[in-house]
Amino acid sequence: MNAEIIAIGSELLTPFRTDTNSLYLTEKLNQLGVEVAFKTIVGDNREHLVSTAKLALSRSEIMIFMGGLGPTEDDLTREAVAEAMGLTLHRDPEIVAALEAWFAKRNSKMSANNAKQGDVITGAVVLHNPKGTAPGQWIAGKYGAHEKIVILLPGPPHELKTMFDQECAERLRAKLPPLFIATRVLKVAMMGESACDARVAPIYKEYADVQTTILAGAGEIELHLRARCDDLDEAQQRVDDLAGELEEELDDSVFSTNGESLDQIAGYYLQMRGATVAVAESCTGGLVAERLTSVPGSSRYFVGGMVVYSNELKAKLADVPPLLIEQYGAVSREVAAALAEGVRDRCNSSIGIGITGVAGPTGGSPEKPVGLVFHAIADEDGTDVVERHYPGDRQRVRRFASQQALDMIRRKLM
Amino acid sequence: MNAEIIAIGSELLTPFRTDTNSLYLTEKLNQLGVEVAFKTIVGDNREHLVSTAKLALSRSEIMIFMGGLGPTEDDLTREAVAEAMGLTLHRDPEIVAALEAWFAKRNSKMSANNAKQGDVITGAVVLHNPKGTAPGQWIAGKYGAHEKIVILLPGPPHELKTMFDQECAERLRAKLPPLFIATRVLKVAMMGESACDARVAPIYKEYADVQTTILAGAGEIELHLRARCDDLDEAQQRVDDLAGELEEELDDSVFSTNGESLDQIAGYYLQMRGATVAVAESCTGGLVAERLTSVPGSSRYFVGGMVVYSNELKAKLADVPPLLIEQYGAVSREVAAALAEGVRDRCNSSIGIGITGVAGPTGGSPEKPVGLVFHAIADEDGTDVVERHYPGDRQRVRRFASQQALDMIRRKLM
Repeated sequence: MNAEIIAIGSELLTPFRTDTNSLYLTEKLNQLGVEVAFKTIVGDNREHLVSTAKLALSRSEIMIFMGGLGPTEDDLTREAVAEAMGLTLHRDPEIVAALEAWFAKRNSKMSANNAKQGDVITGAVVLHNPKGTAPGQWIAGKYGAHEKIVILLPGPPHELKTMFDQECAERLRAKLPPLFIATRVLKVAMMGESACDARVAPIYKEYADVQTTILAGAGEIELHLRARCDDLDEAQQRVDDLAGELEEELDDSVFSTNGESLDQIAGYYLQMRGATVAVAESCTGGLVAERLTSVPGSSRYFVGGMVVYSNELKAKLADVPPLLIEQYGAVSREVAAALAEGVRDRCNSSIGIGITGVAGPTGGSPEKPVGLVFHAIADEDGTDVVERHYPGDRQRVRRFASQQALDMIRRKLM
Repeated sequence: MNAEIIAIGSELLTPFRTDTNSLYLTEKLNQLGVEVAFKTIVGDNREHLVSTAKLALSRSEIMIFMGGLGPTEDDLTREAVAEAMGLTLHRDPEIVAALEAWFAKRNSKMSANNAKQGDVITGAVVLHNPKGTAPGQWIAGKYGAHEKIVILLPGPPHELKTMFDQECAERLRAKLPPLFIATRVLKVAMMGESACDARVAPIYKEYADVQTTILAGAGEIELHLRARCDDLDEAQQRVDDLAGELEEELDDSVFSTNGESLDQIAGYYLQMRGATVAVAESCTGGLVAERLTSVPGSSRYFVGGMVVYSNELKAKLADVPPLLIEQYGAVSREVAAALAEGVRDRCNSSIGIGITGVAGPTGGSPEKPVGLVFHAIADEDGTDVVERHYPGDRQRVRRFASQQALDMIRRKLM
């Protein structure tokens, strides 16, 4: 079965906002074995809405309208969908009473326009909205010669998600042939996209029944695997088999097999080993500390961090010998190592991280160009330094460098 | 004139990716006085593509197709648009020769399928692609009874943006009635959305000809103003008048009137006053340092930062007296002040920032709940502390707190 998602709202046709609700719905529909064939964004314009609804009815089996269910004059979804289907609206006294109660509970009187939210398309099931005032609607039945499912959901993401999960998922499942979807996500650190694809393509191409999607970011690649089958065990077996082969090929470059972020994985290893970490950052400016502490409970293994931009502070806070900076420069293998050792010592952590580099756009030289970063990790056994040259702008260089630093923590403790 | 934007690619119908190119194009089209009436996302499916193109031709004056211009079997945009328009394709030997040269320059031989990128719709102007191999196409003329403009652009954002700017903007302008758009963006710090709207709505409602859009984030509100007029000076005057009235109403809560971020503005004031800053962060975990150093050239005013998670480090690095922590707790007005003063002293900066709070989800108590944050700013004249209670999850609390800290720098130096 094919689905079509229609997002309604003139604000979605401005340069400032885009529809993201459809990503959530797509994931949920895919899990039910339904593919999304079209997504449409249309403004608060009755004529446009009616023609969009008619078109969707002519080409899709399932259509989900999002937004335009509120009380204002701009909220036209109910009227437009009814018109497109040749059906009428009636005002449901139960909904109106519930709306009045909702306002009374908040010590305010319902204004007259709110009653509009009680308008229901003939034959529709009313979908309860626990997070807001606008109820949704579900219409399933013959339309012309074909069986169609039409769903109206409110636009605010938390209302839409709750209503879909509580009121629509099971109703849809009951209408669809039994189909199970198994998924896995492998995450890979610090490997180029084409290098990664060259290694994994020969493997995943052997699994024609598993859909493999590769997403690449700065220093991170995600491999999304998905198999659909009428037997759950079989679907799971297929993605697990492929995941196993991919992990074997990519070996320890794979840092996560269940969707965890590198921030979480670095923390997981630190906690598992009873280790603690402190970081001294120059070019990343606090990004590594920020990522490590973005994980709830990180105070168990994150001791502290320093952002040492000036040479003076590198010496004063992290005990980098000024002579070292003079001799090798602030961006050097030696200073990275001294930062890692100094912060470890000062913060009394088991692991110290030091980062120094040229994030750009200025500050580069022929010997030390923009994108050059040294990363050091120190523990009781000594200090390792990794030199990298990253492409891209300031933000991308910093992201790459933080990714490398977190990956060094993982590899050290693995 | 109405435009329709059609994004092509099956990956845009997965849960992982969404179209963002259309935001850029919408901004550029709006500047030319063109509104976007529909956005459609369709997969690499010839039948779906042809029907989408036919529909667009029936309802829009300008239509921009993005993607599906590459060399693979999945790249069907040229064929589908030609079919929908009832036109034919011919292979342009000049494009094929240019493609061969492109590959030769990179020391590789062009594979046969690449020649497909030389297929041009009859009557189309070929649009040069300086950033990639796939050329675009421009078709303008009568279609049925109406004048239509059909544009085919490549999907990768940097190719699309360059091609639109260099090859399409002027061509479109020449086809459109003269219209000028003036815009302004006001950014407001640390004010609630409804509180802000209550103050500004009575003002912007008096400017029916200026479109006002309010976007709210954690601790930041953006007011986008836009006026369209056949006279540039008049359009500019209208947005400037409204901006002036809004600034007067919101007073010093407005931190930016030309699109700058709060990170940039804080840096701008620091530099202008010849001041320097150092930060000692607990619950924000490095986010304030990261934001300050995200601005190129920030080494001129950012001296250093400390992330002092443990009480021991608060004492050791930032000289917070252990007795103070014992007496008032790590999350307290007193410790925030001591952090600001300690980091200022240690880093020898003119301004010191101290932040301590409960970011959650754990660590809260009835007296010090999740979301409670103390922010301190110290300079030669003394120390100010601000207490706030933020809603939301860990990430949102941290974002709010960093926003407040940057805003305190701005207000101190204003």
